[in-house]
Amino acid sequence: MEGTDAGRNCRGGRQGRAVSGLERLFRARSVALVGATERSIWSTAAFANFARLGFPGRVFPVSRKGGMVHGLPAAASCAAIGEPVDAALLMVPEGAIAEAFADLNAAGIRNAVVLTSGFAEIGVEGAAKQEALLAAARAEGVTLLGPNCLGFINYADRVPIWTTQPPLPVLRGGRIAVVSQSGATAGFLAGFAHRQGIGLSYQVSTGNEADVNVARVVDFLVEDEATRVIGLFLETVHDAPLLAEAARRALAAGKPIVAIKIGASETAARAAEAHTGSLVGNDRVFDAVCRQVGILRVQGIEELVFTAALLARLGPVRDRRLGLVSISGGVCEMAADQAEANGVAVPRLAEPTRDALRAVLPAFGTPNNPLDVTGGAMLDPALFARSLPAFAADPAIGMVACFMDVPDTPEEIAGYRGELVRQIAAGFRATGKPCVMLSVMSRPVTEAGRALIEETGIAYLGSGIPWGLAAIGRACAWSAWRERGLPPRVAPPAPAAARPGSEHAALAYLASRGVPVVPVTLAQSAEAAVAAAAALGGPAVLKIASPDIAHKSDVGGVLLNLAGEAAVAAGFDRIIGATQAVKPQARIDGVLVAPMRSEPGVELFVGVLRDPLWGPAIAVGLGGIWVEALRDTAIRLLPVTQAQVLEMFAELRGATLLDGYRGMPGIDRDAAAAAVACIGDAALALGPTLASLEVNPLRATATGAEALDALAIFAEEEA
Amino acid sequence: MEGTDAGRNCRGGRQGRAVSGLERLFRARSVALVGATERSIWSTAAFANFARLGFPGRVFPVSRKGGMVHGLPAAASCAAIGEPVDAALLMVPEGAIAEAFADLNAAGIRNAVVLTSGFAEIGVEGAAKQEALLAAARAEGVTLLGPNCLGFINYADRVPIWTTQPPLPVLRGGRIAVVSQSGATAGFLAGFAHRQGIGLSYQVSTGNEADVNVARVVDFLVEDEATRVIGLFLETVHDAPLLAEAARRALAAGKPIVAIKIGASETAARAAEAHTGSLVGNDRVFDAVCRQVGILRVQGIEELVFTAALLARLGPVRDRRLGLVSISGGVCEMAADQAEANGVAVPRLAEPTRDALRAVLPAFGTPNNPLDVTGGAMLDPALFARSLPAFAADPAIGMVACFMDVPDTPEEIAGYRGELVRQIAAGFRATGKPCVMLSVMSRPVTEAGRALIEETGIAYLGSGIPWGLAAIGRACAWSAWRERGLPPRVAPPAPAAARPGSEHAALAYLASRGVPVVPVTLAQSAEAAVAAAAALGGPAVLKIASPDIAHKSDVGGVLLNLAGEAAVAAGFDRIIGATQAVKPQARIDGVLVAPMRSEPGVELFVGVLRDPLWGPAIAVGLGGIWVEALRDTAIRLLPVTQAQVLEMFAELRGATLLDGYRGMPGIDRDAAAAAVACIGDAALALGPTLASLEVNPLRATATGAEALDALAIFAEEEA
Repeated sequence: MEGTDAGRNCRGGRQGRAVSGLERLFRARSVALVGATERSIWSTAAFANFARLGFPGRVFPVSRKGGMVHGLPAAASCAAIGEPVDAALLMVPEGAIAEAFADLNAAGIRNAVVLTSGFAEIGVEGAAKQEALLAAARAEGVTLLGPNCLGFINYADRVPIWTTQPPLPVLRGGRIAVVSQSGATAGFLAGFAHRQGIGLSYQVSTGNEADVNVARVVDFLVEDEATRVIGLFLETVHDAPLLAEAARRALAAGKPIVAIKIGASETAARAAEAHTGSLVGNDRVFDAVCRQVGILRVQGIEELVFTAALLARLGPVRDRRLGLVSISGGVCEMAADQAEANGVAVPRLAEPTRDALRAVLPAFGTPNNPLDVTGGAMLDPALFARSLPAFAADPAIGMVACFMDVPDTPEEIAGYRGELVRQIAAGFRATGKPCVMLSVMSRPVTEAGRALIEETGIAYLGSGIPWGLAAIGRACAWSAWRERGLPPRVAPPAPAAARPGSEHAALAYLASRGVPVVPVTLAQSAEAAVAAAAALGGPAVLKIASPDIAHKSDVGGVLLNLAGEAAVAAGFDRIIGATQAVKPQARIDGVLVAPMRSEPGVELFVGVLRDPLWGPAIAVGLGGIWVEALRDTAIRLLPVTQAQVLEMFAELRGATLLDGYRGMPGIDRDAAAAAVACIGDAALALGPTLASLEVNPLRATATGAEALDALAIFAEEEA
Repeated sequence: MEGTDAGRNCRGGRQGRAVSGLERLFRARSVALVGATERSIWSTAAFANFARLGFPGRVFPVSRKGGMVHGLPAAASCAAIGEPVDAALLMVPEGAIAEAFADLNAAGIRNAVVLTSGFAEIGVEGAAKQEALLAAARAEGVTLLGPNCLGFINYADRVPIWTTQPPLPVLRGGRIAVVSQSGATAGFLAGFAHRQGIGLSYQVSTGNEADVNVARVVDFLVEDEATRVIGLFLETVHDAPLLAEAARRALAAGKPIVAIKIGASETAARAAEAHTGSLVGNDRVFDAVCRQVGILRVQGIEELVFTAALLARLGPVRDRRLGLVSISGGVCEMAADQAEANGVAVPRLAEPTRDALRAVLPAFGTPNNPLDVTGGAMLDPALFARSLPAFAADPAIGMVACFMDVPDTPEEIAGYRGELVRQIAAGFRATGKPCVMLSVMSRPVTEAGRALIEETGIAYLGSGIPWGLAAIGRACAWSAWRERGLPPRVAPPAPAAARPGSEHAALAYLASRGVPVVPVTLAQSAEAAVAAAAALGGPAVLKIASPDIAHKSDVGGVLLNLAGEAAVAAGFDRIIGATQAVKPQARIDGVLVAPMRSEPGVELFVGVLRDPLWGPAIAVGLGGIWVEALRDTAIRLLPVTQAQVLEMFAELRGATLLDGYRGMPGIDRDAAAAAVACIGDAALALGPTLASLEVNPLRATATGAEALDALAIFAEEEA
């Protein structure tokens, strides 16, 4: 059936690429309501939604008892409908799901939305039932949304398979798609957007994600014409590689993804476990993924909606230096503080701009950025239309935010409050630069307010100052990511045959992969150690070589700065002796002899780990206390480029130490970053059994970088 | 006149203490409107406000031209009113201010609110005019609010000397006083509170603060019966000591102060300069002051209003472990993350609580904190009334936040949405613990919503999750401050006669004040150095002693770890020689001889500085890179107690290093804190000419602390 009329699912701009297989579901033209009954608020709401949204297709109530349901004759089964149906909404109890599925198959329905709960979210028993459900769906090639979900609304095509009442009236032309693992939260996001006068293109509740998950929906939405911004509520990620890939495609397509991801706290993780039986992954890794693939992570419903709305309206912002305008000095000051807190530059005005503004402002006004047009605008709203273009003409200003509330009532809109908005809109048009009006205080937009916004065409957020500037800050961050682009895809490194278990082997392996590594010799006698040290032509470091000793210093297994034959020979014996005394059972391979490095430098920590959701990731930090006591690291998924490692350096709290300190020269960041990227590639080449690889330290100096120590740990081979 | 009927200004609970002298102004019973004219929106609004608020006194329009104004016969002057008047609102142009003031004096009016602008906010010329205005006011003992202010409203006594329209209808029983240097912002704060269904006791616009400033108004409000919480918008602080003192009294009286203070960014400082000609002080010092005197610093209008409203309702919270309840798992998770982000603990439930909840929740529910009562509550709202007491009975839970929106319309309130709120209110009452209902999304409260809130008596914030949890976090912080109390007032240390200019003198002075100091001998010959070193009984440190050399190491003026006579004698000569070679002009007092300290320890930086607004303050940090490269310090005003210094230690980013690291033992925090407090006292005793005093390092070990170096710098004596 999928094949027979696939053409019908191809919308205008949709081309080629085989995607998520969700077109038929999201653009269904006929829907069976399985378990329809007037006694259920879900069934009643779902049925009413088809009329409320003007669904252009056919709806079939299905009830075992037959009879009239929701004013229509109910079919006793899907098979009894007697014509092809695109999708079914299953509202039957958990115990009746298997039978309902058999009926779907009999009717040839290939898309199912399952409202029913009692699956993975309730524990082990439910998880088994969910497995069975998925198996049934897969057997017949059914696309399954849920279980334990509220469904979806495709506002663009007016397809609402949704089991509660959406906010009404539907706002046309919505550009934001909201996808949520929590059904109630999808509703809250849609409700808040509506209250703010912001329309949606989609709202999707993915529930337990037995089959369709957020990643697949995002993958679909990247190609969807109506959608300009994608908003996510995530408890976990069920297909991390697909989400990362979809996010990369979204960035390339210019569609921002704005995401709430819970689980920053241990308590939220506990709640999520109860909520949908989700595994809440390592929060810091998710943060790193967001940075890496260009997902804007936000803290709550309001921030998501305002950020998405701003991006849907403005798109990428090229020149991100902000001009701030208000009728109140206090507002100017609060906005300036919030701009800085959100990383947005508020430049000073050039003298010609100030002159031009002096000609426009009242005598007691001061031409600055932020610009207080003064309370004079209360008497003369055209002050905005006159001063905005003069202000925005400043070459240092790339975009403008002006603070004014859209009023609530038709009376206010007809009066001077409406006139203020009209004058600001006129001023905006005259600037030729991206402009947005933000409310002074967070407040909804009324129906009358929406009409004024439509009339003036003004870009407006009823966000208030903190959320408005947060949205601007995030829009700027996304625009910068978009300009920079994602690093080019690099081919995965050729797999390594080696499985380097010892420090010596690990260093040798890294060297073979191009990582700069300190020259090390394994000596199995004092004589060999002396010979190796002599070849160095300077003081030596001796370290015990044993697969059983991880913390060499703790057992007296390290000696620094040994000069001369006697010192090296005695050092060899001392290390062997000390180690055997402390750890008599340890296997000893010998002693490593390396040159003593005394050039001033910074010790970096480089660690590769395997995240259970996202796979191999790399952490970089300053060595010593910074990593061990302060946990100051930057993280990325592998592979990383040198450029990405330079960004990681900049994220470190102690980054300033890399630039030199107290007469110590700064390090060669480029060389160090290249070495880190190279370590990442070497780790990837070791394949999925590598549990972790640590280079500690990677010694960075003004002229280069060098791995001084390395440790690789492998998981037991998989069966 | 002040004396004749002062009794009238004494309200019920007001006792004794001579305060700010603002009673007559804020409780005026007769007001002259000087410059009244129907052509001014200010005059029209001000006049209308008396009727809108039900002002119980008399209003007299004053206009040079006489005639009828605002429907009343206007007096040609205040003197012509012919009876005593408590206060005058001056709305005349700047050029007519002097004449108006002469008239006030002639009429014996002792309180003036000056709307007129064109004073300090426009620059030097205006500042001179403001000085003249203040001089005129002081000459006749007039209390002056403004200039460049919008006035004030005393809602409790219905006294509105306010020049724009306040939000209507007035909400009775307001407990929050708002005081703002920006008039428009005072209006925004009042407007936002009103929209959220939150009433005020006062709103005061202080404008340029020629006479009355925020500190004086706070001082007044601490004694005001109607006011339970004080909200501030500050651009600067004109009487820092009074504000600090008033804040201490407010904390003692259990009245929280919640403050927005702009100037965190350089740009805001620029804007404020234009706005009211204010000096925006060092933001980090203000932060420290807030912590020290118990002021809650918030980021914007919304956060101020919600925090103040929560505190006005709940008062101090004793047990601050939070239980979270919602109808949605997604909301539970977001709330838990925000709780953690705001430092609020969300404890696990005890097993008996879980059992009790299992008996109440639907089968598919999970008894946890956060508690998802499940969507079952949509069908059965009484689920809240049943589960809330069972949940809150847990001994680990001290307070409860439940997420649900108060609906907007009478129809919703009559329906199940209203019923949900009623059931939650019933559940709250049954808990016997502090409970608050927070909206899921930020939204206003309608008139119908206010009626439901009144009917149910529920504590409610339409804040949404992020602001709601921020408000809870701040209420908890304030409650903790209040419990801990302020450190006892210590008598200022006895003034020191000394003015220790050299390192040697500074160390000796600190020692004389009880600071543990390394023993140091000033040697003026190699022989004297050898003798001094010999007396130490161990290796010595030699340092050049010169009033002209601040950075001793840079000129070769420090030698460490010298053992034996020969080394010390040679060291003396080497230091003198090196210093003379590099700085031939430097005066040299000799060489300081001190013992070499080798016990493991941490070097602390202790610096005393003089803030232009707040006076002497102390900064503490970890030495070396932490202070020099990372600016990681904690700040307090002096004097500080040992307990306060312990708090400062805890604020440091590198605090964990004080507890030991890599086998190094932790320091004796108590001993180090005592030494820091003692250094602070010693600095205070040096009086106002001390510009700065640095102890760098204060060496802290597992057993004590010791100042190794000290430098005092004095300002030129004042004339």
